[in-house]
Amino acid sequence: MCEANAYIYKNGKEELYLENVDLLIPEGSKIYLRNLFGEQKTFEGHVKEISLLKHKILLEETKE
Amino acid sequence: MCEANAYIYKNGKEELYLENVDLLIPEGSKIYLRNLFGEQKTFEGHVKEISLLKHKILLEETKE
Repeated sequence: MCEANAYIYKNGKEELYLENVDLLIPEGSKIYLRNLFGEQKTFEGHVKEISLLKHKILLEETKE
Repeated sequence: MCEANAYIYKNGKEELYLENVDLLIPEGSKIYLRNLFGEQKTFEGHVKEISLLKHKILLEETKE
C-alpha cells in the first residue's frame, strides 16, 4: 500500500496526526486529509514536507 | 514503489511535470520536488490535491 502517515511537526518533534492517508487537499489556511478508512481530518496549518518513500507527511501549524 | 507523478492542472487538463516524485517541500510561493533519480524541479504555485492511491500530485499555478 502506498498511503502515508501524517505527523504534526512541533518543537523538533513529530506527533502522529492521521494514519494511512490517501488524500490531501489544501484549502486556504487548512489542509483536508482523508485516509483509507474514510476518516477525515482538517488541520489548521500547512505542509512542511512530504516524503513518499518514507510514507511520511509532515504538517506544521502556521505561525502568525 | 510508492512514488507519485506530479501534474500541472491548467484549464481542466493535467500536464505531466515530473515523474516518480519522492520528495515535496513547499517553500513560500514555490514547491520544491525531487524524484527517485535525483532530478529536481521547483514549481511556482501550490499543491491542488494529492492522492497517494492514485500516485498523483496535482500542482496549480497560483492566480494573482
